Amino acid sequence: MTQAIDRTATTDAPILDVLAERFSTRVFDPDVAIDEAALASALEAARWAPSANNTQPWRFIVTRRGTDAFATVYDSLRDFNKAWAGDAAALVVAAATTTTEDGSPMHFAQYDTGQAVAHFTVQAHAAGLATHQMGGFDRAAVTSEFNLPESITPLTVIAVGALGSLDDTSDEVRARESAPRTRRAIGESVLVND
Amino acid sequence: MTQAIDRTATTDAPILDVLAERFSTRVFDPDVAIDEAALASALEAARWAPSANNTQPWRFIVTRRGTDAFATVYDSLRDFNKAWAGDAAALVVAAATTTTEDGSPMHFAQYDTGQAVAHFTVQAHAAGLATHQMGGFDRAAVTSEFNLPESITPLTVIAVGALGSLDDTSDEVRARESAPRTRRAIGESVLVND
Repeated sequence: MTQAIDRTATTDAPILDVLAERFSTRVFDPDVAIDEAALASALEAARWAPSANNTQPWRFIVTRRGTDAFATVYDSLRDFNKAWAGDAAALVVAAATTTTEDGSPMHFAQYDTGQAVAHFTVQAHAAGLATHQMGGFDRAAVTSEFNLPESITPLTVIAVGALGSLDDTSDEVRARESAPRTRRAIGESVLVND
Repeated sequence: MTQAIDRTATTDAPILDVLAERFSTRVFDPDVAIDEAALASALEAARWAPSANNTQPWRFIVTRRGTDAFATVYDSLRDFNKAWAGDAAALVVAAATTTTEDGSPMHFAQYDTGQAVAHFTVQAHAAGLATHQMGGFDRAAVTSEFNLPESITPLTVIAVGALGSLDDTSDEVRARESAPRTRRAIGESVLVND
C-alpha cells in the first residue's frame, strides 16, 4: 500500500483548504508526465495575479521532463536540488522583467513575480499538481543558455508534477516529508496591531 | 437597489473561483468595521506562504480605521491613493526583512513577501474582504513613524475592508470598477515552452 504524503498545516485561524494543504514536496512521481490542463490552469492563475500598475513583470520558461530545455534547467540546479528535482514532470523558471523599456527599474518586479508564482502554486495544488520552488540554481547559466536579455532576471525554478510515493524513498526523505510544517506564530510577524 | 461590483476574470483556462474573482477595488464601505475573523484568517494564510529556506521575511503593520496608526499610514499615502483608501476598514503595511541578523542580504525577501501577500489577498477575498495593494506611499515616513529598523523595508500598503457600493460614486469610478480586467495573454509571458 502506498504511503501518502499529507502535510496539511495546523492553523490558528481557518484558511482555505488549498492554502493549508499546499506544501513544497521533494518527492515527485518520475513516471507521470505533466498534466497539461493543470499546468495551463496554473499559468493562467499566475496571469491573473495583481501587479503594480498592472505591469505584469513575470515571465516563465516552461520545460517538460525529457526535453532539451528541461535538461538545461536541471543542469543549472545546485546539487542539493538535483538530488530530487529531476523526478518532477516539469521545471518552470520564474523570471522577472526588472526594468522598463526605457531602462527604469521596476521596483515591484520581484514582489509581483512572487505573487504570480503564489497563484501558480495554489492553482497547481488545487488541480492535483505538487510544486516546490528552488532558489538554488545558476542564474547566469539560465540567462546565457536561454539568451535572456539583461532586463529579465531568473528568480526561482519551480518543480511541478504528480506527488510521488514515500515507499521507495530513504528514511531521511520519509521523515522530512512526514514532519509537521512549521511557521513563526503570526503575532511575531505583526509589528504593530492597532 | 445597490449596484454590485463583479470583476470576475474571463480566463483562457479554468482557475479557482477565488483567483478569478479577486480584484483590486477602489470602493470600500466606509461604514463597516473590519471583520476581525476574516482579517485573522488572511494573516494566517500569509503565515503559511512558502519562502526560501522557510525564512518568512514578511512583516505586517496592521491598522484599523479610526486609530492613530491608521492615520499615520493613511498620511503616508500618495494623493491618488488618499482619494479612496481612507474608506478601507484597515490599512496593512506589508514589509520585508531584507537582511539576516548578521547583515547578509536576503535575496528572496521581496519575492517571498509578495507570495505572502498573495495568500493574504486570496484568503481575504474568500472571507468576504476586498483588498487593494498600493505601492504609492512614503516609505521613509512609515519607517520613521513606526521606528522600523534598517533591516525592514516597507513594500506595499494593503487596503482591506468590505466592498462598497457604486451608487454614491462618480461616473469615473463607476466606469473603472465596471470595466473588464485585462492581462497580457499568458503566451506572451512564456518565453520558452518545451
